[in-house]
Amino acid sequence: MFHELPTFAQLIKGLQQIPFLASKNLYRVAEHFLQMDPERVDQFCALLIHAKEKIVRCDECFCWKERERPCSFCSSPKRDKQLVCVVETWQELFAIEKTDGYQGVYHVLGGAICPLEGIGPDELTIAQLIARVDRGVKEIILATNQTPEGEATAAFIARKLKGKEVIVSCLARGLPVGSSLEAMDRVTVYKALSERRLF
Amino acid sequence: MFHELPTFAQLIKGLQQIPFLASKNLYRVAEHFLQMDPERVDQFCALLIHAKEKIVRCDECFCWKERERPCSFCSSPKRDKQLVCVVETWQELFAIEKTDGYQGVYHVLGGAICPLEGIGPDELTIAQLIARVDRGVKEIILATNQTPEGEATAAFIARKLKGKEVIVSCLARGLPVGSSLEAMDRVTVYKALSERRLF
Repeated sequence: MFHELPTFAQLIKGLQQIPFLASKNLYRVAEHFLQMDPERVDQFCALLIHAKEKIVRCDECFCWKERERPCSFCSSPKRDKQLVCVVETWQELFAIEKTDGYQGVYHVLGGAICPLEGIGPDELTIAQLIARVDRGVKEIILATNQTPEGEATAAFIARKLKGKEVIVSCLARGLPVGSSLEAMDRVTVYKALSERRLF
Repeated sequence: MFHELPTFAQLIKGLQQIPFLASKNLYRVAEHFLQMDPERVDQFCALLIHAKEKIVRCDECFCWKERERPCSFCSSPKRDKQLVCVVETWQELFAIEKTDGYQGVYHVLGGAICPLEGIGPDELTIAQLIARVDRGVKEIILATNQTPEGEATAAFIARKLKGKEVIVSCLARGLPVGSSLEAMDRVTVYKALSERRLF
Protein backbone atom coordinates (compact mmCIF):
# COMPACT_ATOMS: atom_id res chain seq x y z
CA MET A 1 0.00 0.00 0.00
CA PHE A 2 3.03 2.30 0.25
CA HIS A 3 3.27 2.98 -3.46
CA GLU A 4 0.29 5.27 -2.92
CA LEU A 5 2.09 7.09 -0.09
CA PRO A 6 5.63 7.84 -1.33
CA THR A 7 6.23 10.66 1.16
CA PHE A 8 5.17 8.40 4.01
CA ALA A 9 7.54 5.69 2.78
CA GLN A 10 10.35 8.28 2.69
CA LEU A 11 9.54 9.35 6.24
CA ILE A 12 9.70 5.73 7.45
CA LYS A 13 13.05 5.35 5.70
CA GLY A 14 14.32 8.49 7.42
CA LEU A 15 13.18 7.28 10.84
CA GLN A 16 14.90 3.94 10.25
CA GLN A 17 18.20 5.80 10.67
CA ILE A 18 17.45 6.41 14.35
CA PRO A 19 19.07 3.65 16.39
CA PHE A 20 17.15 1.83 19.15
CA LEU A 21 13.82 2.43 17.48
CA ALA A 22 12.19 -0.96 16.90
CA SER A 23 10.89 -1.32 13.35
CA LYS A 24 7.43 -2.21 14.64
CA ASN A 25 7.25 1.21 16.30
CA LEU A 26 8.32 3.17 13.22
CA TYR A 27 4.75 3.67 11.99
CA ARG A 28 3.67 5.00 15.36
CA VAL A 29 6.60 7.37 15.55
CA ALA A 30 5.86 8.55 12.00
CA GLU A 31 2.27 9.14 13.03
CA HIS A 32 3.43 10.99 16.14
CA PHE A 33 5.41 13.44 13.98
CA LEU A 34 2.53 13.84 11.53
CA GLN A 35 0.16 14.65 14.37
CA MET A 36 2.53 17.16 15.98
CA ASP A 37 1.98 20.91 15.46
CA PRO A 38 4.12 22.07 12.50
CA GLU A 39 5.81 24.62 14.79
CA ARG A 40 6.89 21.89 17.17
CA VAL A 41 8.41 19.89 14.30
CA ASP A 42 10.28 23.01 13.22
CA GLN A 43 11.47 23.49 16.80
CA PHE A 44 12.62 19.86 16.97
CA CYS A 45 14.59 20.21 13.72
CA ALA A 46 16.09 23.53 14.77
CA LEU A 47 17.17 21.87 18.03
CA LEU A 48 18.92 19.01 16.20
CA ILE A 49 20.77 21.36 13.85
CA HIS A 50 21.66 23.73 16.69
CA ALA A 51 23.01 20.83 18.77
CA LYS A 52 25.16 19.66 15.84
CA GLU A 53 26.68 23.12 15.59
CA LYS A 54 27.22 23.71 19.29
CA ILE A 55 28.39 20.34 20.59
CA VAL A 56 31.88 19.24 19.60
CA ARG A 57 34.44 16.78 20.92
CA CYS A 58 37.16 17.99 23.27
CA ASP A 59 40.57 17.88 21.50
CA GLU A 60 42.19 16.40 24.57
CA CYS A 61 39.78 13.80 26.01
CA PHE A 62 37.29 13.44 23.10
CA CYS A 63 34.31 13.87 25.37
CA TRP A 64 31.43 16.06 24.18
CA LYS A 65 31.67 19.73 25.10
CA GLU A 66 29.98 23.01 24.17
CA ARG A 67 31.88 24.75 21.35
CA GLU A 68 32.50 28.03 23.17
CA ARG A 69 33.18 26.55 26.59
CA PRO A 70 36.24 24.67 27.77
CA CYS A 71 35.84 20.94 28.43
CA SER A 72 34.34 20.57 31.90
CA PHE A 73 36.70 17.69 32.73
CA CYS A 74 39.97 18.89 31.22
CA SER A 75 39.55 22.46 32.49
CA SER A 76 38.42 21.62 36.02
CA PRO A 77 40.97 22.69 38.65
CA LYS A 78 39.62 20.01 41.00
CA ARG A 79 40.56 17.15 38.69
CA ASP A 80 43.91 15.37 38.62
CA LYS A 81 45.25 15.67 35.05
CA GLN A 82 47.83 12.98 35.84
CA LEU A 83 45.14 10.31 36.22
CA VAL A 84 43.40 9.35 32.96
CA CYS A 85 40.50 6.92 32.81
CA VAL A 86 40.15 5.33 29.35
CA VAL A 87 36.55 4.51 28.38
CA GLU A 88 34.98 3.20 25.19
CA THR A 89 32.21 5.76 24.80
CA TRP A 90 30.51 8.61 26.52
CA GLN A 91 28.02 6.21 28.15
CA GLU A 92 30.76 4.50 30.16
CA LEU A 93 32.17 7.88 31.17
CA PHE A 94 28.70 8.75 32.39
CA ALA A 95 28.53 5.54 34.47
CA ILE A 96 31.85 6.37 36.16
CA GLU A 97 30.86 10.00 36.70
CA LYS A 98 27.68 8.83 38.45
CA THR A 99 29.73 7.05 41.13
CA ASP A 100 30.84 10.53 42.31
CA GLY A 101 34.10 8.90 43.33
CA TYR A 102 36.46 9.73 40.47
CA GLN A 103 38.56 12.88 40.45
CA GLY A 104 40.80 12.30 37.44
CA VAL A 105 40.22 13.10 33.76
CA TYR A 106 39.03 10.87 30.90
CA HIS A 107 39.94 9.63 27.46
CA VAL A 108 37.05 8.54 25.23
CA LEU A 109 38.18 5.95 22.66
CA GLY A 110 35.05 6.14 20.53
CA GLY A 111 34.38 2.39 20.75
CA ALA A 112 36.29 -0.86 21.01
CA ILE A 113 38.42 -2.77 18.51
CA CYS A 114 36.09 -5.07 16.56
CA PRO A 115 37.55 -6.41 13.30
CA LEU A 116 34.21 -7.97 12.33
CA GLU A 117 32.62 -4.52 12.29
CA GLY A 118 35.67 -2.97 10.61
CA ILE A 119 36.76 -1.06 13.72
CA GLY A 120 40.53 -1.21 14.04
CA PRO A 121 42.87 0.80 16.32
CA ASP A 122 43.00 3.62 13.75
CA GLU A 123 39.25 4.18 14.02
CA LEU A 124 39.66 4.88 17.75
CA THR A 125 41.54 7.66 19.54
CA ILE A 126 44.37 5.32 20.64
CA ALA A 127 47.15 7.29 18.90
CA GLN A 128 45.95 10.44 20.67
CA LEU A 129 46.03 8.56 23.99
CA ILE A 130 49.63 7.47 23.40
CA ALA A 131 50.53 11.07 22.54
CA ARG A 132 48.87 12.19 25.75
CA VAL A 133 50.94 9.69 27.75
CA ASP A 134 54.08 10.93 26.01
CA ARG A 135 53.24 14.48 27.11
CA GLY A 136 53.28 13.16 30.70
CA VAL A 137 50.63 11.20 32.60
CA LYS A 138 51.13 9.28 35.84
CA GLU A 139 48.41 6.61 35.61
CA ILE A 140 46.13 5.21 32.93
CA ILE A 141 43.04 3.32 34.14
CA LEU A 142 41.76 1.00 31.42
CA ALA A 143 37.99 1.04 32.01
CA THR A 144 36.83 -0.65 28.80
CA ASN A 145 33.85 -2.99 29.03
CA GLN A 146 34.22 -6.59 30.23
CA THR A 147 33.45 -7.90 26.74
CA PRO A 148 35.82 -9.68 24.34
CA GLU A 149 36.11 -6.45 22.29
CA GLY A 150 36.65 -4.29 25.38
CA GLU A 151 39.29 -6.62 26.80
CA ALA A 152 41.08 -6.87 23.45
CA THR A 153 41.16 -3.07 23.24
CA ALA A 154 42.56 -2.83 26.78
CA ALA A 155 45.21 -5.44 25.94
CA PHE A 156 46.14 -3.57 22.75
CA ILE A 157 46.55 -0.27 24.61
CA ALA A 158 48.53 -1.92 27.43
CA ARG A 159 50.91 -3.38 24.82
CA LYS A 160 51.35 0.04 23.18
CA LEU A 161 52.12 1.62 26.58
CA LYS A 162 54.70 -1.02 27.52
CA GLY A 163 58.09 0.51 28.34
CA LYS A 164 56.62 3.96 28.86
CA GLU A 165 56.83 5.58 32.28
CA VAL A 166 53.19 5.26 33.22
CA ILE A 167 51.21 3.08 35.62
CA VAL A 168 48.61 1.06 33.68
CA SER A 169 45.72 -0.22 35.82
CA CYS A 170 42.29 -1.64 35.12
CA LEU A 171 38.97 -1.89 36.95
CA ALA A 172 38.59 -4.60 39.61
CA ARG A 173 36.73 -7.71 38.51
CA GLY A 174 34.62 -9.75 40.89
CA LEU A 175 31.22 -10.14 42.42
CA PRO A 176 28.83 -7.19 42.07
CA VAL A 177 27.69 -5.59 45.32
CA GLY A 178 24.55 -7.29 46.62
CA SER A 179 25.08 -10.44 44.57
CA SER A 180 24.93 -14.01 45.84
CA LEU A 181 27.51 -16.56 44.72
CA GLU A 182 24.80 -19.01 43.74
CA ALA A 183 23.26 -16.61 41.21
CA MET A 184 26.53 -15.53 39.55
CA ASP A 185 27.93 -17.08 36.40
CA ARG A 186 30.94 -19.33 36.90
CA VAL A 187 33.39 -17.10 34.99
CA THR A 188 32.69 -14.21 37.37
CA VAL A 189 33.07 -16.48 40.40
CA TYR A 190 36.35 -17.82 38.99
CA LYS A 191 37.65 -14.27 38.43
CA ALA A 192 36.57 -13.24 41.91
CA LEU A 193 38.43 -16.24 43.29
CA SER A 194 41.63 -15.94 41.27
CA GLU A 195 41.83 -12.16 41.69
CA ARG A 196 41.03 -12.27 45.42
CA ARG A 197 42.37 -9.57 47.74
CA LEU A 198 43.43 -9.44 51.39
CA PHE A 199 40.52 -8.87 53.76
CA MET B 1 27.32 17.05 34.79
CA PHE B 2 24.66 18.45 32.42
CA HIS B 3 24.91 22.01 33.72
CA GLU B 4 28.15 22.17 31.73
CA LEU B 5 26.42 20.94 28.57
CA PRO B 6 23.19 22.96 28.24
CA THR B 7 22.82 22.29 24.49
CA PHE B 8 23.20 18.56 25.08
CA ALA B 9 20.54 18.69 27.81
CA GLN B 10 18.22 20.50 25.37
CA LEU B 11 18.84 17.84 22.74
CA ILE B 12 17.97 15.07 25.21
CA LYS B 13 14.79 16.95 26.12
CA GLY B 14 13.89 17.21 22.44
CA LEU B 15 14.49 13.51 21.84
CA GLN B 16 12.30 12.65 24.85
CA GLN B 17 9.33 13.74 22.72
CA ILE B 18 9.81 10.76 20.41
CA PRO B 19 7.58 7.94 21.58
CA PHE B 20 8.90 4.37 21.94
CA LEU B 21 12.43 5.54 22.61
CA ALA B 22 13.52 4.13 25.96
CA SER B 23 15.07 6.79 28.19
CA LYS B 24 18.22 4.69 28.63
CA ASN B 25 18.79 4.89 24.87
CA LEU B 26 18.35 8.67 24.63
CA TYR B 27 22.05 9.38 25.16
CA ARG B 28 23.01 6.95 22.42
CA VAL B 29 20.50 8.44 20.00
CA ALA B 30 21.76 11.93 20.86
CA GLU B 31 25.31 10.74 20.17
CA HIS B 32 24.16 9.16 16.91
CA PHE B 33 22.83 12.52 15.71
CA LEU B 34 25.96 14.36 16.88
CA GLN B 35 28.15 11.92 14.96
CA MET B 36 26.08 12.14 11.78
CA ASP B 37 27.28 14.33 8.89
CA PRO B 38 25.66 17.79 9.18
CA GLU B 39 24.21 17.35 5.67
CA ARG B 40 22.47 14.14 6.73
CA VAL B 41 20.91 15.87 9.75
CA ASP B 42 19.69 18.63 7.44
CA GLN B 43 18.26 15.98 5.12
CA PHE B 44 16.53 14.26 8.03
CA CYS B 45 14.96 17.53 9.19
CA ALA B 46 13.93 18.50 5.66
CA LEU B 47 12.30 15.08 5.33
CA LEU B 48 10.29 15.54 8.55
CA ILE B 49 9.08 19.00 7.56
CA HIS B 50 8.32 17.87 4.01
CA ALA B 51 6.33 14.89 5.30
CA LYS B 52 4.31 17.17 7.59
CA GLU B 53 3.39 19.34 4.61
CA LYS B 54 2.62 16.55 2.19
CA ILE B 55 0.80 13.97 4.28
CA VAL B 56 -2.71 14.85 5.41
CA ARG B 57 -5.76 12.94 6.59
CA CYS B 58 -8.44 11.96 4.09
CA ASP B 59 -11.63 13.98 4.77
CA GLU B 60 -13.76 10.90 4.29
CA CYS B 61 -11.98 8.00 6.02
CA PHE B 62 -9.32 9.90 8.05
CA CYS B 63 -6.55 7.67 6.81
CA TRP B 64 -3.23 9.30 5.85
CA LYS B 65 -2.93 10.36 2.22
CA GLU B 66 -0.65 12.48 0.04
CA ARG B 67 -1.96 16.04 -0.19
CA GLU B 68 -2.20 16.19 -4.00
CA ARG B 69 -3.42 12.65 -4.53
CA PRO B 70 -6.86 11.25 -3.82
CA CYS B 71 -7.14 8.77 -0.92
CA SER B 72 -6.04 5.37 -2.24
CA PHE B 73 -8.91 3.64 -0.43
CA CYS B 74 -11.79 6.05 -1.01
CA SER B 75 -10.89 6.66 -4.67
CA SER B 76 -10.25 3.03 -5.62
CA PRO B 77 -12.82 1.75 -8.15
CA LYS B 78 -12.15 -1.81 -6.90
CA ARG B 79 -13.37 -1.09 -3.39
CA ASP B 80 -16.95 -1.35 -2.17
CA LYS B 81 -17.88 2.08 -0.73
CA GLN B 82 -20.94 0.52 0.91
CA LEU B 83 -18.78 -1.57 3.26
CA VAL B 84 -16.94 0.46 5.91
CA CYS B 85 -14.50 -1.08 8.35
CA VAL B 86 -14.09 1.03 11.50
CA VAL B 87 -10.62 0.86 13.07
CA GLU B 88 -9.00 2.69 15.96
CA THR B 89 -5.81 3.83 14.25
CA TRP B 90 -3.81 3.47 11.13
CA GLN B 91 -1.91 0.49 12.61
CA GLU B 92 -5.08 -1.63 12.76
CA LEU B 93 -6.00 -0.60 9.21
CA PHE B 94 -2.57 -1.79 8.19
CA ALA B 95 -3.14 -5.17 9.90
CA ILE B 96 -6.41 -5.65 7.99
CA GLU B 97 -4.87 -4.50 4.71
CA LYS B 98 -2.12 -7.09 5.15
CA THR B 99 -4.69 -9.91 5.09
CA ASP B 100 -5.28 -9.03 1.41
CA GLY B 101 -8.86 -10.16 1.96
CA TYR B 102 -10.76 -6.93 2.48
CA GLN B 103 -12.30 -5.03 -0.42
CA GLY B 104 -14.30 -2.37 1.38
CA VAL B 105 -13.24 1.08 2.63
CA TYR B 106 -12.18 2.24 6.11
CA HIS B 107 -12.98 4.74 8.82
CA VAL B 108 -10.12 5.61 11.17
CA LEU B 109 -11.44 6.74 14.57
CA GLY B 110 -8.14 8.14 15.82
CA GLY B 111 -8.14 5.98 18.97
CA ALA B 112 -10.61 4.50 21.43
CA ILE B 113 -12.78 6.06 24.11
CA CYS B 114 -10.73 6.21 27.31
CA PRO B 115 -12.07 8.58 29.97
CA LEU B 116 -8.97 8.09 32.13
CA GLU B 117 -6.83 9.57 29.36
CA GLY B 118 -9.40 12.26 28.59
CA ILE B 119 -10.42 10.71 25.26
CA GLY B 120 -14.17 11.00 24.85
CA PRO B 121 -16.33 10.41 21.73
CA ASP B 122 -15.74 14.02 20.63
CA GLU B 123 -11.98 13.44 20.39
CA LEU B 124 -12.61 10.66 17.84
CA THR B 125 -14.15 10.81 14.37
CA ILE B 126 -17.40 9.19 15.53
CA ALA B 127 -19.65 12.12 14.46
CA GLN B 128 -18.11 11.94 10.98
CA LEU B 129 -18.80 8.19 10.90
CA ILE B 130 -22.48 8.76 11.76
CA ALA B 131 -22.68 11.43 9.04
CA ARG B 132 -21.16 8.94 6.60
CA VAL B 133 -23.79 6.35 7.52
CA ASP B 134 -26.50 8.97 7.03
CA ARG B 135 -25.17 9.63 3.53
CA GLY B 136 -25.78 5.91 2.82
CA VAL B 137 -23.68 2.88 3.78
CA LYS B 138 -24.81 -0.74 3.74
CA GLU B 139 -22.60 -2.32 6.39
CA ILE B 140 -20.33 -1.08 9.19
CA ILE B 141 -17.73 -3.56 10.50
CA LEU B 142 -16.60 -2.59 13.99
CA ALA B 143 -12.96 -3.68 14.04
CA THR B 144 -11.81 -1.97 17.23
CA ASN B 145 -9.31 -3.83 19.41
CA GLN B 146 -10.42 -6.55 21.84
CA THR B 147 -9.56 -4.33 24.81
CA PRO B 148 -11.97 -2.75 27.33
CA GLU B 149 -11.51 0.63 25.57
CA GLY B 150 -11.96 -0.86 22.10
CA GLU B 151 -15.07 -2.78 23.11
CA ALA B 152 -16.56 0.26 24.85
CA THR B 153 -15.97 2.31 21.70
CA ALA B 154 -17.63 -0.36 19.55
CA ALA B 155 -20.60 -0.47 21.94
CA PHE B 156 -20.88 3.32 21.87
CA ILE B 157 -20.88 3.42 18.07
CA ALA B 158 -23.38 0.53 17.85
CA ARG B 159 -25.71 2.44 20.18
CA LYS B 160 -25.40 5.59 18.05
CA LEU B 161 -26.23 3.59 14.91
CA LYS B 162 -29.29 1.93 16.41
CA GLY B 163 -32.43 2.56 14.36
CA LYS B 164 -30.45 3.55 11.27
CA GLU B 165 -30.71 1.46 8.15
CA VAL B 166 -27.26 -0.13 8.29
CA ILE B 167 -25.94 -3.58 9.14
CA VAL B 168 -23.55 -3.36 12.12
CA SER B 169 -21.14 -6.29 12.40
CA CYS B 170 -17.94 -6.96 14.31
CA LEU B 171 -14.90 -9.19 13.91
CA ALA B 172 -15.26 -12.85 14.90
CA ARG B 173 -13.87 -13.77 18.30
CA GLY B 174 -12.42 -17.15 19.05
CA LEU B 175 -9.31 -19.25 18.91
CA PRO B 176 -6.42 -17.92 16.83
CA VAL B 177 -5.35 -20.09 13.90
CA GLY B 178 -2.69 -22.58 15.01
CA SER B 179 -3.57 -22.30 18.70
CA SER B 180 -4.17 -25.18 21.09
CA LEU B 181 -7.02 -25.04 23.57
CA GLU B 182 -4.69 -25.85 26.43
CA ALA B 183 -2.52 -22.78 25.82
CA MET B 184 -5.36 -20.26 25.43
CA ASP B 185 -6.69 -18.08 28.24
CA ARG B 186 -10.07 -19.11 29.60
CA VAL B 187 -11.93 -15.98 28.43
CA THR B 188 -10.98 -16.69 24.81
CA VAL B 189 -12.03 -20.34 25.16
CA TYR B 190 -15.32 -19.22 26.71
CA LYS B 191 -15.94 -16.76 23.85
CA ALA B 192 -15.06 -19.42 21.29
CA LEU B 193 -17.52 -21.76 22.94
CA SER B 194 -20.41 -19.34 23.41
CA GLU B 195 -19.98 -17.79 19.95
CA ARG B 196 -19.59 -21.18 18.23
CA ARG B 197 -20.65 -21.57 14.60
CA LEU B 198 -22.03 -24.45 12.52
CA PHE B 199 -19.34 -26.70 11.10
